[in-house]
Amino acid sequence: MTTNPTAAILIIGDEILSGRTTDSNINTIARFLGALGIDLREVRVVHDEADQIIETVNALRNTYEYLFTTGGIGPTHDDITADCMAKAFGVDISEHPAALKLLMDRSIAMGWTLNENSRRMARIPHGAELIKNPVSAAPGFQLGNVFVMAGVPKIMEAMLEDVAPRLRTGARVLSRTLKLSYVGESAAADALREINARYPDLSLGSYPYGLSLDGAFGTHLVVRGRDAEQVDAATNELKAALASVVEAGKARNPLASFEEITA
Amino acid sequence: MTTNPTAAILIIGDEILSGRTTDSNINTIARFLGALGIDLREVRVVHDEADQIIETVNALRNTYEYLFTTGGIGPTHDDITADCMAKAFGVDISEHPAALKLLMDRSIAMGWTLNENSRRMARIPHGAELIKNPVSAAPGFQLGNVFVMAGVPKIMEAMLEDVAPRLRTGARVLSRTLKLSYVGESAAADALREINARYPDLSLGSYPYGLSLDGAFGTHLVVRGRDAEQVDAATNELKAALASVVEAGKARNPLASFEEITA
Repeated sequence: MTTNPTAAILIIGDEILSGRTTDSNINTIARFLGALGIDLREVRVVHDEADQIIETVNALRNTYEYLFTTGGIGPTHDDITADCMAKAFGVDISEHPAALKLLMDRSIAMGWTLNENSRRMARIPHGAELIKNPVSAAPGFQLGNVFVMAGVPKIMEAMLEDVAPRLRTGARVLSRTLKLSYVGESAAADALREINARYPDLSLGSYPYGLSLDGAFGTHLVVRGRDAEQVDAATNELKAALASVVEAGKARNPLASFEEITA
Repeated sequence: MTTNPTAAILIIGDEILSGRTTDSNINTIARFLGALGIDLREVRVVHDEADQIIETVNALRNTYEYLFTTGGIGPTHDDITADCMAKAFGVDISEHPAALKLLMDRSIAMGWTLNENSRRMARIPHGAELIKNPVSAAPGFQLGNVFVMAGVPKIMEAMLEDVAPRLRTGARVLSRTLKLSYVGESAAADALREINARYPDLSLGSYPYGLSLDGAFGTHLVVRGRDAEQVDAATNELKAALASVVEAGKARNPLASFEEITA
């Protein structure tokens, strides 16, 4: 369990904190890391404010093996992420020749003139390696264990493709999900606790849905872990326990049931 | 600007970090706080892990005027938020008579027997005030400047109704949004920077959309601030500047245009 790489995400952007935009990058990166067996341990969202960004970057990059940031690398005055990264690492920042070429090539392809503002996107901290942006050319960059990516979800997702081969991977987390319908979450709590106590390397979680008095309700029970045999054994034990729970639950609600689902 | 209350959000839940669930509570709370003139300064997402929760709660409650947490107050073994709050504040925790009554009343109404696991949801740190849960009865609680709410979005949203009257409010942030179409973000960067420099109390942001080579693309330009006259004046200056930007942009793409939108 302890040998998997750890990671954090830092979302940089007033638009999330103001409520203007609903973040979707956290989930995209969380799934990406899960598939690589990298443990996402923490997420933070901060303002476009230099001191807060620098302090947070240094806290997270020193705590986790990898830090992924999104946002603040565009052409406008509130795009301060690259400068903040340079300050956090104590390195200089200047126009990166390969980054500038990427921007110029795209300008030519689009029939544009590269203006001074767009050209700002070629400013990269010294020592950084570029991250490809197949969508709109302006690159992200990797500085040490920090991966600096765009905030626009489509671009961020494309950048992850270039990031993946650079990461140390771990044992992928496997999961199986049982859907318990028309039975309250608390009815399954004993089984969850007891089985988890016998499988301390696994994580058994329960996530209720539809809690209003009308309509369907129930709980998703998820068995997660890296050892397939253990996950299967615990799932089978949970199924046996749920059979009893459902049997007792039918007295209260004849619709009580459970099934395994792919979630 | 500095007299508005500040706030942070702490999302407690493996299901967000594992990628199983996409968080929607951040956006709900962000909009709720924005409407009350409370500045959301930071968000963190952590695991169902006692040490990390306690440390994070103490860091955030001592930095910001309010802290809102979601998740981990259900009936199962991984619901450890209430115990963590008691530890973070150095107070005891035990069954709260009013909370227990709420759970029992609901059990009776539903024709259920309240089991030991559900009864755990009546354990509340000493000194806390309950937060009403009109959806499924099990209450949240307020301990000092920390508001502990459910993770299920429907319940969390309902709890905010009971929280709102307890909060000191500030000057609501006003915003106006201009949609610049078929013109790159960088073309507006000069205007944004110059106008923001003349209105330092405002925040001018730009959020590109549709950055692929095909299809529609452009930028949303947002003027935000608490002084309506300043917001209007800056928006008018931005409109004048965008008229020139669009005029120049038409040479590149005849579809170039801008309009004010309600966003």
